[in-house]
Amino acid sequence: MQKQRLALLALPFLLVAAAPPHDPAKLRDAALKDDTAWTIAEGLTTEIGPRLAGSAQEARARDWAVAKLKSLGFKNVHVETFDIPGWERGEERGAIVTPYPQPLALTALGNSGATPADGVEAPLVAFANVAALQAAPADQIKGKIVYVGNEMRPAQDGSSYGYFGAVRRSAPSIAAQKGAVAIVIRGLGTDSHRVPHTGVTNFEAGVTPIAAAALSNPDADQIERIVAQGKPITLRLLVTPRRTGPRQSGNVIAEVPGTDPGAGIVAIGGHLDSWDLGTGAIDDAAGVAITAAAAKQIMDAGRPRRTIRVIWFGSEEIGGNGGQAYFDRHKAEPHASVSESDFGADRVWRFETKLNAASAPLTGRLEAALAPLGITKGSGTASAGADLGPWVRAGSNGIDLDQDGLRYFDVHHTSDDTLDKIDPDQLAQNVAAWTAMLAIVANAPESLAGGRD
Amino acid sequence: MQKQRLALLALPFLLVAAAPPHDPAKLRDAALKDDTAWTIAEGLTTEIGPRLAGSAQEARARDWAVAKLKSLGFKNVHVETFDIPGWERGEERGAIVTPYPQPLALTALGNSGATPADGVEAPLVAFANVAALQAAPADQIKGKIVYVGNEMRPAQDGSSYGYFGAVRRSAPSIAAQKGAVAIVIRGLGTDSHRVPHTGVTNFEAGVTPIAAAALSNPDADQIERIVAQGKPITLRLLVTPRRTGPRQSGNVIAEVPGTDPGAGIVAIGGHLDSWDLGTGAIDDAAGVAITAAAAKQIMDAGRPRRTIRVIWFGSEEIGGNGGQAYFDRHKAEPHASVSESDFGADRVWRFETKLNAASAPLTGRLEAALAPLGITKGSGTASAGADLGPWVRAGSNGIDLDQDGLRYFDVHHTSDDTLDKIDPDQLAQNVAAWTAMLAIVANAPESLAGGRD
Repeated sequence: MQKQRLALLALPFLLVAAAPPHDPAKLRDAALKDDTAWTIAEGLTTEIGPRLAGSAQEARARDWAVAKLKSLGFKNVHVETFDIPGWERGEERGAIVTPYPQPLALTALGNSGATPADGVEAPLVAFANVAALQAAPADQIKGKIVYVGNEMRPAQDGSSYGYFGAVRRSAPSIAAQKGAVAIVIRGLGTDSHRVPHTGVTNFEAGVTPIAAAALSNPDADQIERIVAQGKPITLRLLVTPRRTGPRQSGNVIAEVPGTDPGAGIVAIGGHLDSWDLGTGAIDDAAGVAITAAAAKQIMDAGRPRRTIRVIWFGSEEIGGNGGQAYFDRHKAEPHASVSESDFGADRVWRFETKLNAASAPLTGRLEAALAPLGITKGSGTASAGADLGPWVRAGSNGIDLDQDGLRYFDVHHTSDDTLDKIDPDQLAQNVAAWTAMLAIVANAPESLAGGRD
Repeated sequence: MQKQRLALLALPFLLVAAAPPHDPAKLRDAALKDDTAWTIAEGLTTEIGPRLAGSAQEARARDWAVAKLKSLGFKNVHVETFDIPGWERGEERGAIVTPYPQPLALTALGNSGATPADGVEAPLVAFANVAALQAAPADQIKGKIVYVGNEMRPAQDGSSYGYFGAVRRSAPSIAAQKGAVAIVIRGLGTDSHRVPHTGVTNFEAGVTPIAAAALSNPDADQIERIVAQGKPITLRLLVTPRRTGPRQSGNVIAEVPGTDPGAGIVAIGGHLDSWDLGTGAIDDAAGVAITAAAAKQIMDAGRPRRTIRVIWFGSEEIGGNGGQAYFDRHKAEPHASVSESDFGADRVWRFETKLNAASAPLTGRLEAALAPLGITKGSGTASAGADLGPWVRAGSNGIDLDQDGLRYFDVHHTSDDTLDKIDPDQLAQNVAAWTAMLAIVANAPESLAGGRD
């Protein structure tokens, strides 16, 4: 009570500069020394490991998350469940049969169809990229296994994933429409290891799914070298994932209650589910860890003006279901701003905002508080990620803390996404940036929630 | 004929400095621009791929090698076969059952025994290293699955593989003797990827082999984190390799005939076989490629004094059989010097010699010719590697061109040993160093073969 009154008294001062107990600079610098985020990431990846949406492992992750968030002192910790269409991996093997027999390292894409139980063997037809596949006549493809390459390279802002992502998102459906019996792609990875990159694909309505798998980059190189020799290639594939029917997923929610219930919610989070191949360290134990650790910094310093809601989303990977479920359930609640951490664990290098007019003063305060961490202002195009994006599209404020993505697609969606890929120092820089952002946004004296607060 | 007479006339001059056509400096610098080695490494890893000793793939590799060496212009190209005890990989899967169920990335060690066909599930007992395993009483181990860690770190000269190698070479036999039902080790790798490192183990006479597998480093980290929590661990393993009975392997031999048959042979080579997981690029397509490419540089410049014999050994990995077979068959032939390339494809940084008194003048000539490539003189402890080591131990001259091993154990014996791991520039530096060495040794006027020439 006393704390609450103190915060209200401090309000006029906040208009000039952030006041105790939530001085952004002080909290930011203290957060650099906090290991809460590391502890969360270590615990989730060790004690749960892989946690595919809809699986028993994801359900265990929710139980783990509730216990962890309660133990950290958060309030109103609870799970909001929803159903998803389940999909799970089966066997997956592949080989070059001719001209040079040898095994291939590959993995099924999410939503892939299956080969027959004893596999499929067919001639390969290869395309350099999606455009070449699109341009090819169906009679060149019918009855064959399609290969599609891509030229994705690392980019700090991850933008390469947009354009080149079509090879995974669209090529399988196009190949299926043209009569291919299966498809293998050069996966969306910037590494050169025998660890193929999975990720979701989607078949257009009316298209019967075919087996769709990603090759590791060294395997794609091998295919392309043989293609360059002009030799006909035959592949054998055994890929047997299946649709399981409806499965339960859920979002785990925790709060730092604010002193001003009418000021709108500051929603932050990452996603709790992961692909099944690795232990989901950079995607996205890091994101849930960073956001919860930053919220805890604020909580431990005293009550902020606004309620901070930490959401650990379920089923982001296989269809963005958790984000949509949260929006559908909470859309009547005013949100002052939304922010997601879902791009690894490397340092924040830029912040992006998408703010309504009343919230414009936040930008300068963010710039000042984040610059000492090496973070610059972007071009005003925040998206709030896959899970909180619906809010920005519906008009809420969005603030992105953009992580350096130069290494992200080296291990993204592979078995190699494990705890050792997280750099503790860069993880702490993330927590510091999020703490500073929360100190500013959760305490901002302006009316942020589109005039609703 | 004319060339031969010219070489003989040039002999007195060679005592002062290397004369045309084999000027070490000129040939060395020309070799930096030659892509023969790359072409061999690319061809072998692409057109054959994995080539486990005794397999059909290794036999195909011999056919490929004979054709390649003939097409390069070598003389007396032939295969010398021998039998080996065959071993081949079966299924291999593992998982933590309790306390935190999740799959493990592992691979059987060469010569591993098998679990029952439906696997084995047992409590884990963990040791930090081989010394701790050795010190433990049998009743602590009986009926359990043993885990043994190791602290191997990269070293430029690869020396870490000696000491830490005991975890792979010896721990399985020790664990079996003490009644373990299976063993998993932290593999001998310096990377942090989910690609476990295989390699040979040996069970002592009278010890019944147990299933023995290597975990990738991230998986070993995971086990050690849970051990550190003090939680009892149960593992499930399915590892079903088998001994196949006798299989045929063979050495592929090619020569650059010398002008002086009595001057002893200069024997160089690498090994043609590889582990079955990768395509054997750095281990050891690089070695066969480097040595053949260097010999071709000499051949193309004219006939050297001594015959250069290029040997692409079979079955190095599983038991060093090819090297022993060559020694047993050829030990009556005087060898002027022996040198093997079997430590990857990174640059040569040091040369080592082990020379008889008459051959001592070679050292200074090697030092002068190799220094411009950044190569320094070692401490006089050449070993000539696994395949040609028997010759050095029997008193022949040995010359080692030591490659930089700081990255070697990142991919050594994994599925990740693929062509992309070879740096073409560093490969060319190797060829240049070997060319300079051959120009000096094959033409040296001294009597090198222990007084037998």
